Amino acid sequence: MATVDDVNHDTVLKGTGVVGGVRYASAVWITPRPELPQAGEVIAEENREAELARFDVAAGTVSSRLLERSEAAEGPAAEVLKATAGMVNDRGWRKTVAKGVKGGHPAEYAVVAATTKFISMFEAAGGIIAERTTDLRDIRDRVIAEIRGEEEPGLPDVAGQVILFADDLSPADTAALDTDLFVGLVTELGGPTSHTAIIARQLNVPCIVATGASIKDIKSGEKVLIDGSLGTIDRNADEAEATKLVEDSLEQAAKIAQWKGPAQTKDGHRVQLLANVQDGNSAVQAAKTEAEGVGLFRTELCFLSATQEPSVEEQAEVYSKVLDAFPSSKVVVRSLDAGSDKPVPFASMADEMNPALGVRGLRIARGQVDLLTRQLDAIAKASEDLGRGEEAPTWVMAPMVATAYEAKWFADMCRERGLIAGAMIEVPAASLMADKIMPHLDFVSIGTNDLTQYTMAADRMSPELAYLTDPWQPAVLRLIKHTCDEGARFDTPVGVCGEAAADPLLAAVLTGLGVNSLSAASTALAAVGAQLAEVTLETCKKAAEAALDAEGATEARTAVREVIEAAG
Amino acid sequence: MATVDDVNHDTVLKGTGVVGGVRYASAVWITPRPELPQAGEVIAEENREAELARFDVAAGTVSSRLLERSEAAEGPAAEVLKATAGMVNDRGWRKTVAKGVKGGHPAEYAVVAATTKFISMFEAAGGIIAERTTDLRDIRDRVIAEIRGEEEPGLPDVAGQVILFADDLSPADTAALDTDLFVGLVTELGGPTSHTAIIARQLNVPCIVATGASIKDIKSGEKVLIDGSLGTIDRNADEAEATKLVEDSLEQAAKIAQWKGPAQTKDGHRVQLLANVQDGNSAVQAAKTEAEGVGLFRTELCFLSATQEPSVEEQAEVYSKVLDAFPSSKVVVRSLDAGSDKPVPFASMADEMNPALGVRGLRIARGQVDLLTRQLDAIAKASEDLGRGEEAPTWVMAPMVATAYEAKWFADMCRERGLIAGAMIEVPAASLMADKIMPHLDFVSIGTNDLTQYTMAADRMSPELAYLTDPWQPAVLRLIKHTCDEGARFDTPVGVCGEAAADPLLAAVLTGLGVNSLSAASTALAAVGAQLAEVTLETCKKAAEAALDAEGATEARTAVREVIEAAG
Repeated sequence: MATVDDVNHDTVLKGTGVVGGVRYASAVWITPRPELPQAGEVIAEENREAELARFDVAAGTVSSRLLERSEAAEGPAAEVLKATAGMVNDRGWRKTVAKGVKGGHPAEYAVVAATTKFISMFEAAGGIIAERTTDLRDIRDRVIAEIRGEEEPGLPDVAGQVILFADDLSPADTAALDTDLFVGLVTELGGPTSHTAIIARQLNVPCIVATGASIKDIKSGEKVLIDGSLGTIDRNADEAEATKLVEDSLEQAAKIAQWKGPAQTKDGHRVQLLANVQDGNSAVQAAKTEAEGVGLFRTELCFLSATQEPSVEEQAEVYSKVLDAFPSSKVVVRSLDAGSDKPVPFASMADEMNPALGVRGLRIARGQVDLLTRQLDAIAKASEDLGRGEEAPTWVMAPMVATAYEAKWFADMCRERGLIAGAMIEVPAASLMADKIMPHLDFVSIGTNDLTQYTMAADRMSPELAYLTDPWQPAVLRLIKHTCDEGARFDTPVGVCGEAAADPLLAAVLTGLGVNSLSAASTALAAVGAQLAEVTLETCKKAAEAALDAEGATEARTAVREVIEAAG
Repeated sequence: MATVDDVNHDTVLKGTGVVGGVRYASAVWITPRPELPQAGEVIAEENREAELARFDVAAGTVSSRLLERSEAAEGPAAEVLKATAGMVNDRGWRKTVAKGVKGGHPAEYAVVAATTKFISMFEAAGGIIAERTTDLRDIRDRVIAEIRGEEEPGLPDVAGQVILFADDLSPADTAALDTDLFVGLVTELGGPTSHTAIIARQLNVPCIVATGASIKDIKSGEKVLIDGSLGTIDRNADEAEATKLVEDSLEQAAKIAQWKGPAQTKDGHRVQLLANVQDGNSAVQAAKTEAEGVGLFRTELCFLSATQEPSVEEQAEVYSKVLDAFPSSKVVVRSLDAGSDKPVPFASMADEMNPALGVRGLRIARGQVDLLTRQLDAIAKASEDLGRGEEAPTWVMAPMVATAYEAKWFADMCRERGLIAGAMIEVPAASLMADKIMPHLDFVSIGTNDLTQYTMAADRMSPELAYLTDPWQPAVLRLIKHTCDEGARFDTPVGVCGEAAADPLLAAVLTGLGVNSLSAASTALAAVGAQLAEVTLETCKKAAEAALDAEGATEARTAVREVIEAAG
């Protein structure tokens, strides 16, 4: 869907930029998914064996092809491809298809019916299981295309550099992506936190999502200039100019690759860059980067598949691994943020009409306070066992704090255990009431994803509302400014964790607003550090003023870019 | 669930006050609902006829009893009772029960099973159908009690004045309520917008909801003092003092009954009091009160059951009825606010994870702009046909505006049709960006229910979060203050529509914050007018300051009460 603040519909299309970088190349569309068959005629009894064999051969081919690619790939990409191949071989799914064929359905239709059944089962299970439905649809389409002898849906074979266009990308598509050939990604759907966006960030490929149907007019082979920071797709770029812009962008990328921390502005104003982690492994990875510590340890992600609450000892062991990766640095642990889109089996709520506005985060502890005190015990134990003290403090913060009372209640529990107490600022009320909340706390950390969702009253997961759920919205920046102003008044450190901290240009604005630390995926930190090194604090402040005074998110981005370019 | 900011747990319990007034009387608990039976033994084939007869007789008795009460009642109460009786006689439900009994189930269990089935069907239908599940459970319980020969669940027979305690109240319970005997209501569940609250407001019975389990200790017969404004239940009140407080409260009620508009403070500061209406009937009723016009005409409520969009002419006819009830006064029409909890069949969205944060209000018009332009055409036509001009302007406002761009887009469409253009301020961003939004508009109206929901990130329908979804939250009041300040700067009138405007004490605070008009259920206006007549603008301003500086909602209420009492 086109956004209401589109600019120049004729030649410059607009989406949400999620990975920066300018690229100029031919567009190529992903090979389309096959048309799904209707039930169709009944296969005669004597032909059903042969029909089933058609399915088995096709499924076998798809599975081995994915496994081959998995062996050629590395790290998470290999895992994704292997898991997808595994789904093709899932016994339950294959049995259901076989049953359909034995009942007289053509193989293609039996695949559709079996997949539909599994999709409903996965959706009923909810949570991360439900997220696997994209993979189910993906294997369905690959197997159907294979049965028909059609080209495999997904990435086309290409000879030179191209920019990939798609409605949306499946995990299997992006896992196999050769970034030497596919130098940019543009998708009609998705949002800043969609699967496409996450993978693009990991692969560091310039990427624009949520463009709406406007990109449908672009044909494979047409040359386009994309800017992953601005979210623009220019169909009418001058070749020479475009080439220059791409060179500048690559030069900037090289600077990023060479950047060394700790982060500071051109004139020496320090900003702490921290990593978001979810377990020991990711903390170990983060420790290899320029991250100065951990700004957000999402404890709930350790427990998404635990059906029973882990004991204090078991929890302490998990937390120790993260603390141990940063033995002499600050680590900020967020207490269990279950509920909403992160159902934790042992702490999950009944069905709610609007889970994002429901009993989640700290609110769960109101009814199950022991869950929280045991977690705090475990964090304190892990911290003590490792002998962490003032040099390497363990900070703990509560998600979804909305009132001063909640802040005090949580802080008291932390202090009883010798932990440094803070709160996420992600509910608008928490920012508006910062003067009442901060006196109870040692620090705060702004969660821009949820703060944006609530400030704009727009679901961050909704592709239709991606034009609203943008941390560049001046309304969100104004709440951040207010939080920073109060932080300065009460001498309370203010951090930002969330997608906003990973956006180099926005990082400059946040620095100008007075944010003391930025926490993001560890892979995103170098780009932020390199950007900060190129601007003075004064420029950051001017950029912040320009953004605060803009009418909308698009205008804010443009205004900030102008301020920074003018400052040279 | 007890709220974290409870005070004095021993003798003063706390809930959310929804209808003001002090009462002192014996508590009486609603007759409990019957224990639901398990499947139990199979009825022998020869006894199934007799078993079915037991059900038929019981259902017949319950139905006639409800119909009798319906005939004795008047207005909406009669309708509710008749509708409930109708559900007992629903052919589908009775057939499903009969089928269960014929299959060998005991009558009581067959009733439970049939009702469970209907509840899931109703819930799957969603929207207002889903709300009828309370009635289904109610008739299930009445019929089971009748089969067993137990006392009918619901209102007990009482001899003198009592305060009714319940977990929650069903429509059938409250419709039959004799307010000479039941002088107060206290429920464990529910919220400020629950069925109980709506009926209590209509009947003008002091009422407290969402007390949590704390009231369970109170036994029938125990004398309690309740304050429906403060939301307190005092178990240890001094009899003489309590009697005095009740007298004062009744005296205040008498003042309210005598109050005549237009509303102004003691020192003559005018505040426009307007009515919230949803159709011609309610507008005619409102015109009989002191309402100076309509502050919120909820157009979507005319169309909740329309499967097809009404034509421009049909719409104009509906709107004319409302405009005609106030031929020479201001009427504010809100454009279709479909979506979320108000699904309008012809404008409804697909399933959304969080409908309150979804494509609702003005956002629907982004994809279906014709729906909006036809509605604006119909409003303009109705207005022109009635010859309304500057003396009796027709104002139109859009729900869920979040950005300056949306405000301008909507205002342009209104102005093209000669309509006065405004926006609801109910998304936090709209308040924060008031300086960018107001220049595009002629007026704004703050929707406190949604503004509170988003500012606190708490579902207004959630009973567990009622302690957060309170318009007295200082965070919400600060956004209202900011909106009023910007309104003064840009010379843009600022109204408030929503439950907050119906709370007399809060109305004084809103006046102090600079709100120009208050719109509420027409039955609530006299109490607001009477309260304003007793305070000066200066006192309102002091009350506002005290509320803004409070730590939480409870503290804000107390502080304001003190300011007003001190001013005498």
